[in-house]
Amino acid sequence: MPSSDRITVRRGAEHALYEGAEILRILEAGLVAHVAAQTKDGPLVLPMAYGVHENFMYLHGALANALLKSSTDSEICATVTIVDGLVLAKTAFNHSMNYRSVVIRGSGRVVTDRHEQMVALRAITDHVAPLWDTTRELTENEIRATRVVALPLTEMSAKIRSGGATNDPEDADIPFWSGHVPITSRFGDPIQNSDALGEMPAVVARLSGLDAYNRQET
Amino acid sequence: MPSSDRITVRRGAEHALYEGAEILRILEAGLVAHVAAQTKDGPLVLPMAYGVHENFMYLHGALANALLKSSTDSEICATVTIVDGLVLAKTAFNHSMNYRSVVIRGSGRVVTDRHEQMVALRAITDHVAPLWDTTRELTENEIRATRVVALPLTEMSAKIRSGGATNDPEDADIPFWSGHVPITSRFGDPIQNSDALGEMPAVVARLSGLDAYNRQET
Repeated sequence: MPSSDRITVRRGAEHALYEGAEILRILEAGLVAHVAAQTKDGPLVLPMAYGVHENFMYLHGALANALLKSSTDSEICATVTIVDGLVLAKTAFNHSMNYRSVVIRGSGRVVTDRHEQMVALRAITDHVAPLWDTTRELTENEIRATRVVALPLTEMSAKIRSGGATNDPEDADIPFWSGHVPITSRFGDPIQNSDALGEMPAVVARLSGLDAYNRQET
Repeated sequence: MPSSDRITVRRGAEHALYEGAEILRILEAGLVAHVAAQTKDGPLVLPMAYGVHENFMYLHGALANALLKSSTDSEICATVTIVDGLVLAKTAFNHSMNYRSVVIRGSGRVVTDRHEQMVALRAITDHVAPLWDTTRELTENEIRATRVVALPLTEMSAKIRSGGATNDPEDADIPFWSGHVPITSRFGDPIQNSDALGEMPAVVARLSGLDAYNRQET
């Protein structure tokens, strides 16, 4: 059941999901969130890295980041979308895409507690792969220069569409092709910086060839 | 030069682009836009298919679509993002992603002129591949059930980041690996619906193996 009216899916309600574990799987699989806040110039939506820890989505940015400034103690929306394919019906009216998406609405809270800041920054860094332990520690200045915002995973819903096209029964006999075209995203081989020192960490080497939106072998 | 203050890129300004042709290339390459509007319950951002024709981004949805309803004659923001890879620095502070993104801000206009409606629906349908001519024509009821919204391509900016990590000069000698991991998305083989009739259109067959975010051979 949806936890609030404002995250209840109206269109395509048959694809809606409100169960936490299923929503978390999509949040784990995604790479960026599109985060919207209302600014003095109207709504603004920007792509952001994110992490999930316990009951929060964590976002971060420079102190001067206008979107995160606007999100403080005000309503924001974070949407994570993975496009899985094109859906081609017999008519453009029934064309669609296969996708997994999560919409989270809530009030952004600036994280000021040092322990929670570090938990959040680690969750963001480790979101795609556990990279935190193979980098040097953050300096005091780096931590102070970073704004961390927590968005509670309370009001959220997901939509998942998969499989072939849904054609109208009246279109059954019209002579048009129909089907779907999957999209798969993969990590390529890591490319080393000229200033890299030491061995490529195993957690990085392991990414090569993995599905970028599941971090699994395909 | 940015066309307005509110689409001027503040953070990472060295990655900003304001030139129309370069922005259009990203819009052509993208698959979905994340569209934000201010609703009575706060900002809402949803993924949407889109098309571009002349000086407009076109969006469409059912008449009941709450986001498109909210976007009528009010400020919206549409952001198209393509994630091209992970950027791994010597410290998490300098981690980043490689990406191409476009942010468009403006007022949504509901399209009521029949000619512009059809131009818009064709632009949306043909955005990924020219599919319009291989589907049956839309019925009068289907057209009436669809809301088309035009967003002017006037106030927009892009950011592109590519290549390796930017490490601090002070980190040059610390023994940590650094580099980047490309992400490539590809269309797989089309999967035919059980109710498909006739041959798979050549424009669909040609998608197989193409880069999904460039629609080109890689």
